[in-house]
Amino acid sequence: MTDLQNPIELVGMMDSPFVRRVAIALSCYGLKFEINPLSVYNKPEQLAVINPLLTVPVLRCGNMQLLDSRQILQWIDAQVSHAWLRQFDAWAFGHIMAASDVLALKTGELYRETAWRAAKFRCPQGVSRITGQLSAALELLECDAQFDHVPMHHGSIALATSYCFAQSVCSTLDVTLPSTPRLAAYCDVLEAGPHFRMCI
Amino acid sequence: MTDLQNPIELVGMMDSPFVRRVAIALSCYGLKFEINPLSVYNKPEQLAVINPLLTVPVLRCGNMQLLDSRQILQWIDAQVSHAWLRQFDAWAFGHIMAASDVLALKTGELYRETAWRAAKFRCPQGVSRITGQLSAALELLECDAQFDHVPMHHGSIALATSYCFAQSVCSTLDVTLPSTPRLAAYCDVLEAGPHFRMCI
Repeated sequence: MTDLQNPIELVGMMDSPFVRRVAIALSCYGLKFEINPLSVYNKPEQLAVINPLLTVPVLRCGNMQLLDSRQILQWIDAQVSHAWLRQFDAWAFGHIMAASDVLALKTGELYRETAWRAAKFRCPQGVSRITGQLSAALELLECDAQFDHVPMHHGSIALATSYCFAQSVCSTLDVTLPSTPRLAAYCDVLEAGPHFRMCI
Repeated sequence: MTDLQNPIELVGMMDSPFVRRVAIALSCYGLKFEINPLSVYNKPEQLAVINPLLTVPVLRCGNMQLLDSRQILQWIDAQVSHAWLRQFDAWAFGHIMAASDVLALKTGELYRETAWRAAKFRCPQGVSRITGQLSAALELLECDAQFDHVPMHHGSIALATSYCFAQSVCSTLDVTLPSTPRLAAYCDVLEAGPHFRMCI
């Protein structure tokens, strides 16, 4: 365990699934942190002072500043004696993380292609392409994953936070996503837990 | 070393900086591989059969299929006795990777916001937002990085492949990016090497 003489600051807002997965991991390990609620949509000029790339999450502790969410999770794991959120099959983890990242990134892109811009600039082919990729990610996760039990680890946290983000954004848009009842039930179990409920 | 009884197939095209960084790493280690040149823009229906997420790179070897580019680099490192492309400071790596990923992802987004769509759907605020993030990534890399020597590792490969991609896409568009002479010189050195030249 290192560095924890200094307070942990997490820059970002919980409406970003990448910020939320970090916040939930910190909460699971009992690591105290302060949220600095900045985003590219909310106070971008303040975020630019901290991170000119305008991406979140940013994790700061003492003189250290991390900009990469995968690396932030690695750093958090290194702060605890037992990194139990990393206890799972590495290749399955990569598969879930890849699909969860597509779900999160394409949901963000869909938001910018629709609600974020004036109606006259919305490109039907763009919406169709993004919705197709979103649907594929959801179908892959619905079919492939084994949901007999609901473990808590970095992969399942990434999956549930991305799913919540996709549902939240798409519910306000006129897009139809495939029905994924098993995935929904899996995420409901996770969302009902204390660490998920603390990070909203 | 494992798995290498089977041939390595890399799905994707060299116009993706994420595919190219994987191809260059394979080449540096002397690992033979075959390219399957599919992309979301070129034969998406064939790509969808392999990866419904429609993302590249995909790496296949025997029964194994990896969809996540960070995980693919980890797998490649695990196939060789000395993973010398990973020999560098982990936190500096995260910083370079974060900026390189922003450079690559935002260049892709800029392409889809401009050349990919009909002119009437191009959103000036979208172009401005993306160009700002691209410029910030370039300026961060120009100022922060120490370019006294040009090492070959996963971080520098990611940086140079993203830079090449950004230059290539932006040269055909009416966008102005900041001047980054040190970064350009750094990438020129890498691009002149045999592994970069084999992967174009």
